[in-house]
Formats: sequence, C-alpha cells, structure tokens
Amino acid sequence: MNNENRYEAQATQVLQYLRGLQDRLCNTFGGASMGGEFLRDAWERPASETSLQGGGITAVQEGGEVFERAGVAFSDVRGSKLPPSATARNPQLAGRGFRAMGVSVVMHPRNPHAPTSHANVRFFSAGDVWWFGGGFDLTPYIPYEEDVIAWHRAARDACDGVSQNIYPVARKHCDDYFFLKHRGEARGIGGVFYDDVNESSADMPLTWEQGFALMQRVGDAYHDAYRDVIARRRNTPSTERERNYQLYRRGRYVEFNLVFDRGTLFGLQSGGRTEAILMSMPAEARWAYRSPDAQMDAALLPYLTTLRGKDWLG
Amino acid sequence: MNNENRYEAQATQVLQYLRGLQDRLCNTFGGASMGGEFLRDAWERPASETSLQGGGITAVQEGGEVFERAGVAFSDVRGSKLPPSATARNPQLAGRGFRAMGVSVVMHPRNPHAPTSHANVRFFSAGDVWWFGGGFDLTPYIPYEEDVIAWHRAARDACDGVSQNIYPVARKHCDDYFFLKHRGEARGIGGVFYDDVNESSADMPLTWEQGFALMQRVGDAYHDAYRDVIARRRNTPSTERERNYQLYRRGRYVEFNLVFDRGTLFGLQSGGRTEAILMSMPAEARWAYRSPDAQMDAALLPYLTTLRGKDWLG
Repeated sequence: MNNENRYEAQATQVLQYLRGLQDRLCNTFGGASMGGEFLRDAWERPASETSLQGGGITAVQEGGEVFERAGVAFSDVRGSKLPPSATARNPQLAGRGFRAMGVSVVMHPRNPHAPTSHANVRFFSAGDVWWFGGGFDLTPYIPYEEDVIAWHRAARDACDGVSQNIYPVARKHCDDYFFLKHRGEARGIGGVFYDDVNESSADMPLTWEQGFALMQRVGDAYHDAYRDVIARRRNTPSTERERNYQLYRRGRYVEFNLVFDRGTLFGLQSGGRTEAILMSMPAEARWAYRSPDAQMDAALLPYLTTLRGKDWLG
Repeated sequence: MNNENRYEAQATQVLQYLRGLQDRLCNTFGGASMGGEFLRDAWERPASETSLQGGGITAVQEGGEVFERAGVAFSDVRGSKLPPSATARNPQLAGRGFRAMGVSVVMHPRNPHAPTSHANVRFFSAGDVWWFGGGFDLTPYIPYEEDVIAWHRAARDACDGVSQNIYPVARKHCDDYFFLKHRGEARGIGGVFYDDVNESSADMPLTWEQGFALMQRVGDAYHDAYRDVIARRRNTPSTERERNYQLYRRGRYVEFNLVFDRGTLFGLQSGGRTEAILMSMPAEARWAYRSPDAQMDAALLPYLTTLRGKDWLG
C-alpha cells in the first residue's frame, strides 16, 4: 500500500468510528426516554476557492424534556489552505491543504442539578502530517462530588487503556484550557483535553494506532460517563431559585465559547456553518452585575477555583 | 502653560464633560418615570505592576420597568504599559504609559418594539500623542423606519456641527465595524463610529478642540435621540411572540460583543473589571439552530443586510 492509500485507509477507519459515535450519542441522549429527538441536518458543500469543501451531519435537539438544547455534530471537511487559527502551533503548515474530521458534542440539560457536558474527538491530516485531538469536560451548576469523582475516573480509565503517560498530561491541559481568565474561574470541573497529538508531541507522543485507540476510548467513555450522570440527576426536584442560578451560570458558558474556544474561533474564521458551530450555545443565558445567589456560589465556586486541579482519584 | 500642564487642563475639561454626561444619562433613563434606578458602583484601584490604576463609576440598572438591563460606565484609568489590543494601529506606542477616559453606555429595553442602543465617547492620551473615539448605534428587533431616519439625522447633525467631512466617514466606520462576519449581518441599523482620531488621522483629521467638540456633540445627540426613541416605543403593546424573537436576536448582540468588540477585548485583556465591561450583555439571550420566526426575520433582516449603508437622509 503506498502512502496515499494508507492515509486514505486510516481516514476511513476514523470516519467509521465517528459516524457510529454520533449515532450512539443521538440514540442514548435522544428518543422517547429523553422526551426529545435529535433532528439531523445533513449538509454538503462543494469546493470553492474561498471556503471548505466537505460535508457533515449536524444533529440538534431543542426543547426536549431532559435536554433544553443539545448538539452532536459530525463533520468531514477538506480545505486547500489552512486558516491561521489552525496553524498557531504549526506555522510550517500555513497554506497547506488539509482534511479534518470530528465529532463535537455539547449537551445542556434543563434540570439545574444535571451538568452541561462537552466532548470532542477529531482527526486532522495535512499530507504526511497528522494529529489527533479530543477530550471531555463537565460543567455543573449544582455540584455533586459523586459526579465529579465518577467523571474523573472515567477520564483516567479511558487514557490508561492506551498509556499511563496520557492522563496526567491531558487532565492538566483540560484544567488549563477550560479556564475563563477574566473571571479567574474554570469553566467546570475538568476532565481531559489534548490537541495536536502525534508521534512527535513533546508531552504525550502517540503513534497513529495509539492516537486512534485514544479517540475511541475517549468517545466511548464520554458516552457512558455522561449517560450515568444524567440518569442520576435528571429527576432531581429543583426550584425556581436553582433554575435562575443555572441560567446565570450559563452566561459563563457563552463567554468561554465566544472568547476562548479555539474550535469556535477556527470555525467562524474558516467560514464554517455558523449555526452548527454555535450549537454549543445554551438555549438561554443570563447576565447580571452581581451574582444572584451568593449561597449557590459558595457551593459551586470552590470547584472552579481552589479545587481546580485537585486529584479526585487519590 | 507648559505642555504637561496643558495636557492636564485638557484632560480635566474632558473629565468634567464625561461625568456630567453620565449623570444626565442616569437621570433621563432611570428614576420614577422609567420604573428603575441606576445603582452607582464607585471603584478605585491603586497602582500595581500588573494592572491599571484609576477609578470610575459603573452605573447599572437591572430589572426596571422600561430597561431590563442598562449600564452607563464612566472610567478614568492610567497604565504604565499599553496592552497589545490598544496599539494595533499604533505599534510605536506599545509599552508606553497612558491615560484613558470614557463613558460607555448600553441600554436594553424590555419592550421588543424599543431598540437596544449603544454609545461610547472616549479620550486617550499617551503623552504628546492623543486621540478621541466614540459614536453610537441602534439595534432594533422590530424596526421602525421613523426611528431609523431620526437616528441617522441625529448622527449627521452631531457631526456636521464640527465639520461636514466627518459624517460620511464616521457613518461608514459604524457600518463596517458593527458587523457580524459569521452571520453576514450588521448588528443594527448603524449610526456613527470613529476611533484613533487626531490631527494626523488619514480620513477625518481633527484638532484637539474639534475632537473635544465632537465628543460633546455625539454624547449629547445620543442622549436626546435615544430619549425620543424610547418615548415613542416604550408603551407599544407587544406579544409573547415578539418577546421570544427579541430574546433570540439578543443572542446576536452577545456574539458581537464577545467575538468582535475591541472595547470588550481591550478591557478583558488589560485586566479590567469584568462585570463593568460585560454590562453590555443583555439580561437574557437565547440561541436556536433555526430562527424561531421567519416573518419577523423578513421585517428585520433587510435593515441589517441589503439596506446596510443606505442613505436614509437623501
């Protein structure tokens, strides 16, 4: 098999995993048991000089009983010229052709006891240069230590199945990345995150086979861990006060995504499909000059500040 | 009078105008007739190596009858080192000490027939280099041609009182700047906007005296023009459908401020007071994969797309 064919075969393997993951997530988090369906919006875009070529399926659920808004987006795009935001760490790639595939997930439950979650797995190829990226993180509004521990355990187990060198690095990346500098707060309680990973990565070098195995373990672990959190919290009785606080804290989620998130900025810069990129936005968010609830802040904020980086599995 | 004293005297003049403007805006748009008060949060920050020194008064109204959320912020800060976002157009100033004063206003009325408005006037001095910036723009959710024409007339009259060369330039800056590239939509129906204006500005050079006169005319015109719009629209009966559409469109307002607004990015980068910077956020915003109201889009979107840049005063 020559190199071109090998790249193609690898991409096909990744493609199959990603499409299967999207289906599984839509089946688990949509349907009768969730009181809401994911609507699939398939799209395709022909080649042009100025934009990406490719296609995808954006699955969105809005107004469900369990999920107010949730999105599971699969995309597979090719471009003739990498945009600057994609090459910040790899300036030698600026201007090259590329192919990028991924599944990106954000789920905003209605119940304030149920945390918002995010996951992303992606594969990037620009000829002989390739990398994997991905991870998942959890954003509670009313924190439960049981959920925090289970989430980090799922993250560690997913990584350890490939190599024990991964988790400490990917955990720290997650804590560092999902951080709102202007607030001095983490977005949530963390998880794992890694990007631009290949054989020559400084802190977690992986072969292609390891990178693909990690993608699968991360995608699968997210599916199972979040399914379990939702099962525990979806029916917890909640008050209007808790709901108000949740909507206020969702303003922070919006701030992170629009100010800091590399994926969002890459998408908006590269002429991506705006509604698919912004499916990460909550259905509703609020802002106020002062927090509406000092008591609920007192329960949540330690998880986002002093406990950030804590070893929950020790 | 030596140069240092002259700079100081000029700054004092600007300071007095700005504080008076803040008071007038709070009195006109708050109080019994508006069913809501501006709460004044005075702040002061001592010098430190890493942040700005100075003070200000952030006046915020939340939960009023006419205004859901409104902010009028005055600030007067000094820094020992200009942050990169402030020197994009003036790289020779990077690292210099500076003083910046301004009044910044965003008002979000509750009634969907009443437009959101924004205004800003500011003065920037870095020793012998100074500039003025400012402007105002209007963001309707249910457009009224009467309001659009009155708004642009107020903008033109404010500029023409200083020089007839200003309005065409500042109108175009406003249309260019308040634009959501990823949406292909203007934020609103425009107004005027100018930045980095001094004697050597390429497109609208102004003496210091002209710059200060323009600041005053722009601040005054905003006060009067928005007062008149609110008087016309505050009591228009509205439906839940119109309210839903307004909240959805407010998502766009959030997107502009967090993705594109230079003032917001400057503030967040330079370690400004986050809640004061983000007082521009609406009380509440919503997102949806598809517009909830094609008919209301059909009424509004032409103003933000095909009619963008139209000469309403011709």
